[in-house]
Amino acid sequence: MAKYAIGIDYGTLSARAVLVDVHSGEIAADASFSYPHAVMDTRLPCGTSLKPGWALEHPDDYELALERTIRRVMEISGVDSRDIVGIGIDATACTILPLDKEGQPLCRRPEYASEPNAYIKIWKHHGANERARRMTAAARELKLPWLDSFGGHISGESMFPRLWELMEEAPALYADMYEYAEAADWLVFLLTGERMRNSCAAGYKAYYCKNIGYPGEDLFRTVAEGLDQAVREKLPSPVKPAGSYAGGLLPEMAAKLSLRPGTPVAVGHVDAHVSAAAAGVTNKGEMLMIIGTSACDMLLSDRSVPVPGICGIVEDGILPGFYGYEAGQSSVGDLYQHFIENAVPASYADEAAARGMNLHQYLTMLAEKLRPGESGILALDWLSGNRSVLADFDLSAMVLGITMLTRPEHIYRALIEATAFGTKVIIENYRKHGVPVERFTATGGVSLKNPFAMQLYADILEMPVHVVNTPVGPALGSAVFGALAAGGSGGGYEDVTAAIRAMSGRIGAVYQPREENFAVYRSLYSEYCCLYDTFGRGLNPVMKNLRALSQEAKR
Amino acid sequence: MAKYAIGIDYGTLSARAVLVDVHSGEIAADASFSYPHAVMDTRLPCGTSLKPGWALEHPDDYELALERTIRRVMEISGVDSRDIVGIGIDATACTILPLDKEGQPLCRRPEYASEPNAYIKIWKHHGANERARRMTAAARELKLPWLDSFGGHISGESMFPRLWELMEEAPALYADMYEYAEAADWLVFLLTGERMRNSCAAGYKAYYCKNIGYPGEDLFRTVAEGLDQAVREKLPSPVKPAGSYAGGLLPEMAAKLSLRPGTPVAVGHVDAHVSAAAAGVTNKGEMLMIIGTSACDMLLSDRSVPVPGICGIVEDGILPGFYGYEAGQSSVGDLYQHFIENAVPASYADEAAARGMNLHQYLTMLAEKLRPGESGILALDWLSGNRSVLADFDLSAMVLGITMLTRPEHIYRALIEATAFGTKVIIENYRKHGVPVERFTATGGVSLKNPFAMQLYADILEMPVHVVNTPVGPALGSAVFGALAAGGSGGGYEDVTAAIRAMSGRIGAVYQPREENFAVYRSLYSEYCCLYDTFGRGLNPVMKNLRALSQEAKR
Repeated sequence: MAKYAIGIDYGTLSARAVLVDVHSGEIAADASFSYPHAVMDTRLPCGTSLKPGWALEHPDDYELALERTIRRVMEISGVDSRDIVGIGIDATACTILPLDKEGQPLCRRPEYASEPNAYIKIWKHHGANERARRMTAAARELKLPWLDSFGGHISGESMFPRLWELMEEAPALYADMYEYAEAADWLVFLLTGERMRNSCAAGYKAYYCKNIGYPGEDLFRTVAEGLDQAVREKLPSPVKPAGSYAGGLLPEMAAKLSLRPGTPVAVGHVDAHVSAAAAGVTNKGEMLMIIGTSACDMLLSDRSVPVPGICGIVEDGILPGFYGYEAGQSSVGDLYQHFIENAVPASYADEAAARGMNLHQYLTMLAEKLRPGESGILALDWLSGNRSVLADFDLSAMVLGITMLTRPEHIYRALIEATAFGTKVIIENYRKHGVPVERFTATGGVSLKNPFAMQLYADILEMPVHVVNTPVGPALGSAVFGALAAGGSGGGYEDVTAAIRAMSGRIGAVYQPREENFAVYRSLYSEYCCLYDTFGRGLNPVMKNLRALSQEAKR
Repeated sequence: MAKYAIGIDYGTLSARAVLVDVHSGEIAADASFSYPHAVMDTRLPCGTSLKPGWALEHPDDYELALERTIRRVMEISGVDSRDIVGIGIDATACTILPLDKEGQPLCRRPEYASEPNAYIKIWKHHGANERARRMTAAARELKLPWLDSFGGHISGESMFPRLWELMEEAPALYADMYEYAEAADWLVFLLTGERMRNSCAAGYKAYYCKNIGYPGEDLFRTVAEGLDQAVREKLPSPVKPAGSYAGGLLPEMAAKLSLRPGTPVAVGHVDAHVSAAAAGVTNKGEMLMIIGTSACDMLLSDRSVPVPGICGIVEDGILPGFYGYEAGQSSVGDLYQHFIENAVPASYADEAAARGMNLHQYLTMLAEKLRPGESGILALDWLSGNRSVLADFDLSAMVLGITMLTRPEHIYRALIEATAFGTKVIIENYRKHGVPVERFTATGGVSLKNPFAMQLYADILEMPVHVVNTPVGPALGSAVFGALAAGGSGGGYEDVTAAIRAMSGRIGAVYQPREENFAVYRSLYSEYCCLYDTFGRGLNPVMKNLRALSQEAKR
């Protein structure tokens, strides 16, 4: 008798549920739901304007997505609810909202409907960047030892700067808030009635360290009056290992979702990190790159070694039993797409159309014919700043080497090469600090849609690139944890490696590095590093000065 | 009774004659002729392939242009040949060809029809660049004092490296050559039967100094055996002041051109330098920028002061009685056009078409709305390398500061700003070395067609930009020298200032610098200088390394 797990992934613009056979890993059903309010980045539904850099979502959308996607996969598959062994959930992070004591989002109260801080601040909310900078400076001043585990900085995309923002901008809301909760944890609470924080988001996004806890009150006391009580007052729930058993499905939710009451639900997880389970990454030294508009790089290790410029090291943060290292690049697919939309002439569009190709395909055809180095073009890929290893969002992209002979395909290829060089910097940075990277796996949109890019990555990294053959990445990973929550006796698994081996996506294409390209790419990489240091490490502050002038001009 | 002078300008792709009233400066007729062979840069008419970087023209085209354009202006104007007081000629330089003792181009001999060195090597011939580098190194080693007057380097676009190239590549041709002649001087010989070299080309392009002569044999002996006799053997004709009286029109040529025998003909001149007369530039401290695909900057001074990185200082090289300083930028209009053709998307082309605009007009409309600094973009304008003050043709262009918000109009404006910053570097370099620049005049295509660019130049240079209201620039300047060759008694002028005052183009638009933009542009200029030094002065050799890799890849 076949058994199934459900995995639900909350992305930036939509949620997706998959219903997966726990023995074969086959996807029996797949359903998506786009958030009706989408990302709110200019105003709230009531009309209140938002400041630049803000990015909010509505908890009603998240709750609705739960019902819509789960009911739909049950309908499509026709599976009996008794054959659903468990449920797993992941979401983007830090994607966070204030709840009252009953677990209700505070934005639902009429008095807070027009308060931006009452809504979900999603991962790319950049309202608290300045507070993050001040918090980083204070943490460095205090020489806090845990800072080394998070690349030496507190990110504007992490939790505490946002909590501080809420406290100062909306003191009444802060007083009424019982808990500042990650969206994934709130959804698990809706399903089970159990309160907890998942260790993955708590670690990478709130700098929670196993055995030590959250950052100490000394840091918070230094930056803002009243914030020193934040952990005690506003983070009351225990931290539980991401993906472990959270509780059984509440009867009223079971009825709503056409599921069986008591169905095991896993502790929430983060979308990027849960992808490791979907990609079959189970050994130390394995790096998984989730490559889409941006790139997240997950790395498993058996040791915790401080590595500057990464996003974080969290024990059990990716898979239980490993130290999970996270790093990333802010612009990958975004960079290619910005070029396609803004810098390819009409003559190319006409020629592509005549050949029945889109511009990506046509440029790829032309760029593939070039030899490494032939274009004479080198780029820096920092369209939205640099996440790793510089952790500097005020940097920008550049293109160098333009001559009369330069054509769009030269720059297109150089942009792809630049993103691969950026990945190489991250890998070399790990190696330099004693953390091995021995196998490289890719998943996400670009890995499936852009074989040309993947081949260049292989040539530049001098490693085979293994591409996982699944288009549903994180949702599949959550289903793996749903099966684990069920346990062996519940029709699922006791052992994470066994669950992953059975259910993860299979490796499809493998791009082998071409040795004949190594020498030229090593030369180009050395030039890339030269530009990287010149503009990224403060030797030449021109990028920041230009940004400051631009912000001044827009005032 | 009205009197007229004829001026003929030999450009890169065509020649133009104008017939000008010597009292009012009115253009009575204007005729152009495109060279039938155009620029030969891949093969000769007989099929012989040319090496990369070569750029040749056919002397038959030049001789034909003389007849076609002069006969045409006589026809159009209906002027009696007795009312033509004089003729002036200018051409690009160094634009040079080997002649036999009778003044016949050697490429007309059957045995040399397939020899590339027998044709006219035009100004942008880059076959001798490597020899120029070796010659520069040798001149520096010998500490030759005249090198300081030519910016400290021997250009690949100057004469001796090409003569050396001819000597080594085609020894038989070298032996048969009586004279290596500038095209302008050969044309004057055709008209008058008189042999000479004009002081402008001899100075700027063959490093001839009044009172000293050509570079000494010590330099040539150092670089190549046999070259030490080149000046004595292959440059037999005297140097005469550019624009002075050369001789009277030969009867057979007069018949061919519908002109009167004995009509005074001026010594040849160089197209850029002769533009000063057309632009009414007659005072020390006045700079004239001829701005088209590239830019030439002419400056008059009463002193000769070594200034690094300029093209040359020649006494009487621009106007008699002044030291003429020449500097320049390799890409201006070229840079804008390359961007328009290669980096503006179809959506912009569609919107421009819907508004009945071309892409330049549409981008200008959008770019004009931006405030200085707002784009956050800064560029280096070295699409074809840097002529002044780096004298380095291996450099390339770059664009920095690209973010998700960057649009084509941001980069378009940054490219225009970059060319203006490049001009500012040239002016500041003069000032730093004690050569004043007090007034700035512009002529040439971009000055008339691009008011937006001229306004940005005014804002960035912090000087008014005076634009000369003539579309026939150099030809008008040659007509001024035609009137001078006639002398006062011949119906023309004795005094150059009087001739220029009467005949030169009038100042049309004057762009006043806008003080409110000074502060931001000073900041941006300082960032530009930072990039200029980083990539141009060898601190960061990435541009050269990329070029070397590219050339290697193309082998």
